[in-house]
Amino acid sequence: MRGLLLVFDLIGTFVFALSGATAGVRRGLDLFGVFVLSFAAGTFGGIARDVLIGAVPPAALTDWRYAAVSLLAGVVTFVWFSGLRRLDRLVLVFDAAGLALFAVSGAQKALSFGLHPVIAALLGMTTGIGGGMARDVLLTEVPIVLRAELYAVAALAGASVVVAGAMLNLPSTLLTIAGALLCFSLRLISIRRGWHLPVANESQHGEKSEKTKQ
Amino acid sequence: MRGLLLVFDLIGTFVFALSGATAGVRRGLDLFGVFVLSFAAGTFGGIARDVLIGAVPPAALTDWRYAAVSLLAGVVTFVWFSGLRRLDRLVLVFDAAGLALFAVSGAQKALSFGLHPVIAALLGMTTGIGGGMARDVLLTEVPIVLRAELYAVAALAGASVVVAGAMLNLPSTLLTIAGALLCFSLRLISIRRGWHLPVANESQHGEKSEKTKQ
Amino acid sequence: MRGLLLVFDLIGTFVFALSGATAGVRRGLDLFGVFVLSFAAGTFGGIARDVLIGAVPPAALTDWRYAAVSLLAGVVTFVWFSGLRRLDRLVLVFDAAGLALFAVSGAQKALSFGLHPVIAALLGMTTGIGGGMARDVLLTEVPIVLRAELYAVAALAGASVVVAGAMLNLPSTLLTIAGALLCFSLRLISIRRGWHLPVANESQHGEKSEKTKQ
Repeated sequence: MRGLLLVFDLIGTFVFALSGATAGVRRGLDLFGVFVLSFAAGTFGGIARDVLIGAVPPAALTDWRYAAVSLLAGVVTFVWFSGLRRLDRLVLVFDAAGLALFAVSGAQKALSFGLHPVIAALLGMTTGIGGGMARDVLLTEVPIVLRAELYAVAALAGASVVVAGAMLNLPSTLLTIAGALLCFSLRLISIRRGWHLPVANESQHGEKSEKTKQ
Repeated sequence: MRGLLLVFDLIGTFVFALSGATAGVRRGLDLFGVFVLSFAAGTFGGIARDVLIGAVPPAALTDWRYAAVSLLAGVVTFVWFSGLRRLDRLVLVFDAAGLALFAVSGAQKALSFGLHPVIAALLGMTTGIGGGMARDVLLTEVPIVLRAELYAVAALAGASVVVAGAMLNLPSTLLTIAGALLCFSLRLISIRRGWHLPVANESQHGEKSEKTKQ
Repeated sequence: MRGLLLVFDLIGTFVFALSGATAGVRRGLDLFGVFVLSFAAGTFGGIARDVLIGAVPPAALTDWRYAAVSLLAGVVTFVWFSGLRRLDRLVLVFDAAGLALFAVSGAQKALSFGLHPVIAALLGMTTGIGGGMARDVLLTEVPIVLRAELYAVAALAGASVVVAGAMLNLPSTLLTIAGALLCFSLRLISIRRGWHLPVANESQHGEKSEKTKQ
C-alpha cells in the first residue's frame, strides 16, 4: 500500500508538473520559469497538506524524487510540446489526472495520520486542488477550480470513496484505484459534456462577466 | 472565555465566508466555486495563524463546525442574495465584521500560546486580514487590505486593545468585546467618511492608477 | 557565524522590504498598504522556509527586529523615494540584493537543521524568491521570478555555493559572502546584458502574448 501511494503521488506530481509547465510555455515563460511553475504545480498540494497535518519538512522536500519528477516534466514539456497546437486541451487532461491521483493519495495520508474521516476527505480535496490553484495564481488567472466544470466536486468524490471505504474496512488498494478513476472520469466527462453546477444569477453574471475579463 | 472565543471565531468565519461567497457570486462563479471561496475567505486567516504558531492541524480543519458554517454561508448567499443589487456594500460590511472578530480572537489565541504581546497583536492583525487577502488573491484582485480605507490599521487597533488590556490584567471578555467594537466601527466609519491614510505621491498616483486598473 | 547570518537576514529583509514598499508606492497604495507590502516582501521567504522546516513560530515573528526593519523600510520609501522617477530600477537592485542575502542565509539555516544538501540548496532558493513572489502576487502581477532574466537560477547558484562549500568543510563565513556576491552579480549582469534563458516557442509566444495581457 505504501508503495502504491508513493507511485500515485509521483505520477500525480508528474502530470500536475506537466500541466504547470505547459501553462508556463503557453504564457511564454523561459526555461527556469517553466521549472518553477512545474515544481509549484506538482508539489504545492502535497506541501500544503503536509504543513497542515504537521508532517514537516514535507515529503516533497525531503524526497528528491518529487523534485526530479517535476524537473523531468519541465524538460519534457519544453523539448516536446512546444510545437503542439493543442496545449490547452493537454493541460486539462494532465490536470484531471493529477487531481484524481492527489485527491486519493491525500485522503489516504490524512487517514494514516489519524484525522477524522470528514477532514481526511477535505484534505484529499485540498491536496488535489492545491497544485492547480498555485499554478493559476502565479500566472494571475482565477483558479480553474473556481470557474470550471465539476472540479473540486470530482476531487471530493474521489477522496470520499477512499474515506468511506476505509470506514467499511474495504481493501485500500482497490479503494484508491476506484476513487481515482471516479474523480478522473467525472472531471473529463463534465468537460466533454459541459456539465456545470448552477450559477447564482445568470443575468447578473452575463452583465458582470465583462468586468471580470478586464 | 473559551466559549466566547469559539463563538467569535465561528461568527467571524460565517461573515467572512459570506463576504467570500458574495464576491464569488458577483464574479459569476458556480455553486462549488462559491463554496471553495467562502471556505477560503472564512478560514484562511485562522489557518495561517495556527500554522505560524505551530497549532497543527489547524482548528478550522479539526473542528467540523468551521466547514459547516462556511458551507451554510455559501448556501445562504447562493439562495438569498443573488437577486440583490447592493452586493458590493454587503461584502464591505461582512468583511468589516469578520475583520473585527478575527483580529481579537487571533490576538487572544496567540496570547494563550505564550507569544510576546507585540507578536500577538501582529498575529491578531494577520488573522483578521488573511481571509480577505486569500479571497481577493483567488479572484486576482489586489487585496482590499492594500488599497482600502483604514483596514489593517483597524485590525491592529482591535488586536492591540486585547493585548494591552491583557498586560494590565483587565477582564478578557470585556477586552475582546471592546477590541472588536473598536475595529468594526473604525473600519465602517472610515468607509463612510472616506478616511484614507496618506498616499506617497498623489501626482504619480493619478498617473499610474490607469495602469493599475487595467 | 550566527551573528553574520542574522545581519544578512536583517539586511535582506530591509532591501526586500524596500522593494515591496517601492512597488507599493508605484501602484499608489496608502501608508499602511505600503507597510503590509514591505512586511510581506521582507519576511515571506523566511517565514515559508521556517514553516517548511518546522521552525515555528518563524523567526520573523518572534524577533521584533524583522518587523522593525520592515517598518523602517516602509517609512524610508514613503518619505524619501516618492519624488524619484527611477523607482522601477531601484526595485530591481534592492530585489537582487535581497535575493542574494536570503538565498545564502536560507541555505545555511536549512543545513543547520540537518537537511539534505540538495534540499538545503532548494530551500535557500525558495527563501530568496519567496518574498518577491508574495509581493508580486499581492499586486496581481506574474511574479518576476517567472519572467525575468536569470533570477531563480542566480538564487540557486548562490545557495549551491554555500551548500557545496559546507560539504567540503570550507569556512562558512567566506562561503556565505562568496555565494551572496555570486548571486547578486549574476542577477545584475543578466539584467544589464539582457541575458535570458531560452523560451520554448518564440512564434507561439508572440502570438499568445496578446491574450496574456488582457
